[in-house]
Amino acid sequence: MSLDMTNDRIPYYHPTGRECALFERAHDNGLPLLLKGPTGCGKTRFVEHMAARLNKPVYTVACHDDLSAADLIGRYLLKGGETEWVDGPLTRAVREGAICYLDEVVEARKDVTVVLHPLTDSRRRLIIDRTGEELVAPEGFMLVASYNPGYQSVLKRLKPSTRQRFLSIAFDFPEPEAETRVITAETGLPVPQVVPLVRLAGHIRKLSGMDLEEGVSTRLLVYAARLIGAGIAIEEALETAVVQALSDEPDVQQALRDLIATVYG
Amino acid sequence: MSLDMTNDRIPYYHPTGRECALFERAHDNGLPLLLKGPTGCGKTRFVEHMAARLNKPVYTVACHDDLSAADLIGRYLLKGGETEWVDGPLTRAVREGAICYLDEVVEARKDVTVVLHPLTDSRRRLIIDRTGEELVAPEGFMLVASYNPGYQSVLKRLKPSTRQRFLSIAFDFPEPEAETRVITAETGLPVPQVVPLVRLAGHIRKLSGMDLEEGVSTRLLVYAARLIGAGIAIEEALETAVVQALSDEPDVQQALRDLIATVYG
Amino acid sequence: MSLDMTNDRIPYYHPTGRECALFERAHDNGLPLLLKGPTGCGKTRFVEHMAARLNKPVYTVACHDDLSAADLIGRYLLKGGETEWVDGPLTRAVREGAICYLDEVVEARKDVTVVLHPLTDSRRRLIIDRTGEELVAPEGFMLVASYNPGYQSVLKRLKPSTRQRFLSIAFDFPEPEAETRVITAETGLPVPQVVPLVRLAGHIRKLSGMDLEEGVSTRLLVYAARLIGAGIAIEEALETAVVQALSDEPDVQQALRDLIATVYG
Amino acid sequence: MSLDMTNDRIPYYHPTGRECALFERAHDNGLPLLLKGPTGCGKTRFVEHMAARLNKPVYTVACHDDLSAADLIGRYLLKGGETEWVDGPLTRAVREGAICYLDEVVEARKDVTVVLHPLTDSRRRLIIDRTGEELVAPEGFMLVASYNPGYQSVLKRLKPSTRQRFLSIAFDFPEPEAETRVITAETGLPVPQVVPLVRLAGHIRKLSGMDLEEGVSTRLLVYAARLIGAGIAIEEALETAVVQALSDEPDVQQALRDLIATVYG
Amino acid sequence: MSLDMTNDRIPYYHPTGRECALFERAHDNGLPLLLKGPTGCGKTRFVEHMAARLNKPVYTVACHDDLSAADLIGRYLLKGGETEWVDGPLTRAVREGAICYLDEVVEARKDVTVVLHPLTDSRRRLIIDRTGEELVAPEGFMLVASYNPGYQSVLKRLKPSTRQRFLSIAFDFPEPEAETRVITAETGLPVPQVVPLVRLAGHIRKLSGMDLEEGVSTRLLVYAARLIGAGIAIEEALETAVVQALSDEPDVQQALRDLIATVYG
Amino acid sequence: MSLDMTNDRIPYYHPTGRECALFERAHDNGLPLLLKGPTGCGKTRFVEHMAARLNKPVYTVACHDDLSAADLIGRYLLKGGETEWVDGPLTRAVREGAICYLDEVVEARKDVTVVLHPLTDSRRRLIIDRTGEELVAPEGFMLVASYNPGYQSVLKRLKPSTRQRFLSIAFDFPEPEAETRVITAETGLPVPQVVPLVRLAGHIRKLSGMDLEEGVSTRLLVYAARLIGAGIAIEEALETAVVQALSDEPDVQQALRDLIATVYG
Repeated sequence: MSLDMTNDRIPYYHPTGRECALFERAHDNGLPLLLKGPTGCGKTRFVEHMAARLNKPVYTVACHDDLSAADLIGRYLLKGGETEWVDGPLTRAVREGAICYLDEVVEARKDVTVVLHPLTDSRRRLIIDRTGEELVAPEGFMLVASYNPGYQSVLKRLKPSTRQRFLSIAFDFPEPEAETRVITAETGLPVPQVVPLVRLAGHIRKLSGMDLEEGVSTRLLVYAARLIGAGIAIEEALETAVVQALSDEPDVQQALRDLIATVYG
Repeated sequence: MSLDMTNDRIPYYHPTGRECALFERAHDNGLPLLLKGPTGCGKTRFVEHMAARLNKPVYTVACHDDLSAADLIGRYLLKGGETEWVDGPLTRAVREGAICYLDEVVEARKDVTVVLHPLTDSRRRLIIDRTGEELVAPEGFMLVASYNPGYQSVLKRLKPSTRQRFLSIAFDFPEPEAETRVITAETGLPVPQVVPLVRLAGHIRKLSGMDLEEGVSTRLLVYAARLIGAGIAIEEALETAVVQALSDEPDVQQALRDLIATVYG
Repeated sequence: MSLDMTNDRIPYYHPTGRECALFERAHDNGLPLLLKGPTGCGKTRFVEHMAARLNKPVYTVACHDDLSAADLIGRYLLKGGETEWVDGPLTRAVREGAICYLDEVVEARKDVTVVLHPLTDSRRRLIIDRTGEELVAPEGFMLVASYNPGYQSVLKRLKPSTRQRFLSIAFDFPEPEAETRVITAETGLPVPQVVPLVRLAGHIRKLSGMDLEEGVSTRLLVYAARLIGAGIAIEEALETAVVQALSDEPDVQQALRDLIATVYG
Repeated sequence: MSLDMTNDRIPYYHPTGRECALFERAHDNGLPLLLKGPTGCGKTRFVEHMAARLNKPVYTVACHDDLSAADLIGRYLLKGGETEWVDGPLTRAVREGAICYLDEVVEARKDVTVVLHPLTDSRRRLIIDRTGEELVAPEGFMLVASYNPGYQSVLKRLKPSTRQRFLSIAFDFPEPEAETRVITAETGLPVPQVVPLVRLAGHIRKLSGMDLEEGVSTRLLVYAARLIGAGIAIEEALETAVVQALSDEPDVQQALRDLIATVYG
Repeated sequence: MSLDMTNDRIPYYHPTGRECALFERAHDNGLPLLLKGPTGCGKTRFVEHMAARLNKPVYTVACHDDLSAADLIGRYLLKGGETEWVDGPLTRAVREGAICYLDEVVEARKDVTVVLHPLTDSRRRLIIDRTGEELVAPEGFMLVASYNPGYQSVLKRLKPSTRQRFLSIAFDFPEPEAETRVITAETGLPVPQVVPLVRLAGHIRKLSGMDLEEGVSTRLLVYAARLIGAGIAIEEALETAVVQALSDEPDVQQALRDLIATVYG
Repeated sequence: MSLDMTNDRIPYYHPTGRECALFERAHDNGLPLLLKGPTGCGKTRFVEHMAARLNKPVYTVACHDDLSAADLIGRYLLKGGETEWVDGPLTRAVREGAICYLDEVVEARKDVTVVLHPLTDSRRRLIIDRTGEELVAPEGFMLVASYNPGYQSVLKRLKPSTRQRFLSIAFDFPEPEAETRVITAETGLPVPQVVPLVRLAGHIRKLSGMDLEEGVSTRLLVYAARLIGAGIAIEEALETAVVQALSDEPDVQQALRDLIATVYG
């Protein structure tokens, strides 16, 4: 499957458990879903995959420090001397009974809870206080959020009153065979060249939390495979897609190069 | 009772004491009311229930870091080159003699006290300083606020001068029989399948304040019951609705799984 | 006297010293007045009482973190494509020679001093810098402010250069007989039922500063009396108007219940 | 001299040294002047006095945390669909060759230095960057600033690059005879009743920096004298104008009452 | 090559490894690229060089504390009473399939990740939430970012979820022969005069991280060479372009002068 | 030379080294220049002097905490319902090939680097992102900045990536003979009266960094000389222009008076 995939195909996703069935049950019962797991382990891809399987549009919002309720709900814009209301992505998703995906939801500003609470309890209402409109979420609407437990800090965390409104699924990097299949599917690199990449990833991920903040993502392995497929030497491809991409510390970089030598030596 | 309940029915609420009578007396005497208790113990549901019983509209505001007085009172919007005043939810509640419910009131910005103080003493006046208008709250108007004492911090707390303007009722999770009835009513799951869920909740709530920030809410039990009713295996339903929903710590998650094994084993 | 009192009557106030004469002399000599004392001891009521006695309107501003000079003085609003000046409460008070009451003045933003300083020294001028207008306060104008010394912190305090512009009167809770009279007058509850309430208040106020941030206000006693008068059992009325209203700590709550048992047992 | 003094008279000021001659020389030579000293020792009065003697208007700005360059220079206001420039007090003073007095200049925001620097060196220019206009200060223009060294903190201080642009005069409370004359002149109270007030002030000011942040200002003595003249008992007048006005600490208040007893006993 | 180079020539760049081939492969495969290295080592020049070789326009954005998503994407401006959308540099680059270069990307505000994430994963979409437009990046579009690992702090760092979306190339100062060629090409100074400059730079860069925050950049060497070529004495040229430019500490300045004496003595 | 100098004369400046030649070479080669040194040592005067010698206009910007890129580049103003672009001082300097002088550049906000970086490397471009305009700086344009190394703190410093874009010249107070000539030229005070002033300055500057944050500036000496010339007694002139101007600490003030007694005694 290529990066230029068109939207009318279902994005490739390799399940690691019963997460697809859980997503469908949550969707059928109108229950919000929280996806937890490290960077690049496939949470976003999973949402896109499920949305395509359920044949629904998905509105993705990458959350950040300055993301406010208005960014989700909408705001007035000045047009022709008149203020005109423009729906935000969450409002669009509610109106259309679509999926709204809040990526890294803990990063959002606190006023986002104003929007999420009445939408995730028995009221299922989106209150657009600027216009006084109240939308009742139709049956197909589903709220999905993701976050990375490794980032949790005292300042940035989900309050229990928000967190306990979501079913939660823990994600992790795929098993070796699964990851090999993913990389092969994404890049077309032959399996024998992908196997040592995945083996290397396994070694690196054991360092995570010690010297490395996070283990290597499947995405970086795809990058490396793509460079190798484009004729770049393995050592150079891994230097740019793994060693330099993961760390600035000479010691850690050397440790990574030692792991590479162990796998490829 | 389903999540798609229509507004013309009285939301299900199972009283745990004399809180319904107290709410009615507070309403009759125009006294503000503060509901204290943990996440998901039914404070919001109680307000919706009482509002329906008293046949009054309720304006709910989920408070947050950036909620200001203007968000409650209203603001000017630019329409057709003119600024036009639009009432906020509190102003609407005062005008209509309705109930205004400030959920998690300690999260609001400090200027909210400007609005609440003259409205909660003998003056019972809402001062709309931007327009110079002063509304005297009619007899039926009632202010209800909630907060979670478990969240109180030095930075975010109710000042005594605000707090002492409210009657206060403490809420807690319902007793086992009551909680069983609630979950059965909400999900239709047969009582024998609900009883161990409630037993599990009792065990988990004893952990609260130690390893768990908050005990499991009735809402999460409803989620679990709903998944079980939809054919998901018990272990998997509890993993997603309880274990992963309550904690990211492997130790705590294992402790929760041990409790599940104790109850279901 | 009921909560629905109309404005043409003088609000009930029971003097505890010579504060009424001092207020009148300050008013006659154009001297600003600072009222110091705990929450709910009657400072606001005193101002409303004196204003009614002097037959003057009073503009009350509850100060807070975000209250700025513009909120006091006024601002431009956009109307019909024109900016139109709208007086703030302080400007209105100066124009009309009325009383302006800044409740909890230490909470206001620092730029408020810009307004207060020239108004509280020999110049007695209100400078409206946005319009370039300068108002000389007429003889009847009086500035009153209140604050609670118990809240004073390093960050929020009156600078000496501001504080030394005010005469200061210290307030405290009323004496038992006076408080009994106030509660009876407010609620109509017979004196024999009010007396133990006031006795309880005396016991509780001795705890203030130790486990309790502030002692119980007269207002909460009025709430309790009102509930008792509406047929709520004494224990329940005190639980909701005193125990839960004053503290979230189980230990402190139990201590309060023990005091209740002592008084009522 | 009464508080209702009209502007065509010279405000009363009793010199304590050669400050009047220094002010005149600074004015003649176009040198900026900084007045240093405690609260209420007469800095503002001195500026008003000198301005009247030199027959010049004075534009006073009480500086604060949010005072910005635009507040001094001016800003655009929207009028009739057009933005219209409105001069700030500093610009008005420069245009008219008047005196501009920045009271408590350290409190102003840092961008104020943008305005002050080119105006206080050999360029003597006021740069109005919003309009592109540059005013050369005419000969009579003079910049005066005040600050209270007792407030200096690490966060709020005059940078040497700003401070070294001013001549500086240190002020302190007036000598007893001088202060007696001031209070008599302001209130009409007979000298024998003013003398013990001034004696009391001398005792209190020795406590300053220890238990008291600042000694009692002449202004508070004037307040006390005025209350006494209006028939309030001495003890009560001093309680409200001195004891309660200076401190909230019972210990300090008792020490002040002991001093009063010493002087009046 | 002069500083006045016209845009139709390829800016001079001396490769130090296989970075040109890597840039081209990244470009062909639509992979984002991160350039890491110290100040003035040629990262910006490298991007301009590669853009010229690939015959593509490059939109450069110097990131900073206040750079927000709107600065990259675009915003509405008020024109003739209408709000009119104006594309930001990133949007322009996406529309034209050009290169967008985010210099010192860690300095940008956090909401920039909203823009970068969907643009740097398999979606390759730029979401313009204000207009609701979604652009799919055409094949030629490439995102390049730079940062200096020496500046990394706890507050300002690339989150792994952002960082792992980029291939990374580490840059360092060029080798002596290469740097000599660069300086000669830039300034026209004869090689024998450039050689000691480059030797000096080698000595100075060994001090980096100890007394010096960063070693001397090639740019400062070019400045020194240019001054020497303009007839300024070597000692003076190095004092102004190296000693004073690198440090304010007398000790460090003396150490630098000692190095100069060693090389030129 | 008087303070009322007209712009068609060259401001007096006494060179202390080869700084004039360096400035001219930097100007000819289009190299940015950084002037480092203490308050009041003549950096601003030097820029005005060189600008007059080179017959160029100079746009001076006193930088501060809130100075942003828009203040330098320009902004839209609303005129007659249309937004109209108004150039900032930097844009004006670039358009006219003039000198732009950023006084105390470290004080500016961080987004100023966005403007300075492309203008101070080989691109020499000013990017006006709001209008999409890109100006190439013409040959005569020169950027000059100043800062005071004594103020450098962790929070406010020039990043190496900015700093290494400038040639740097260190300034200090002038030598005694030079300073005597400057003060005589500025004030007309006879040399024998100026000599002890300069001697005093030498003593005081040795205290700098110990009890005094900065030594006395030449400007304050000029003030003292001017007061002495206007007939103020020496002791009084030095008290107001030196002692009180430099410090609020009684100990330091006494030390300064002792130095005065040593020089004049």
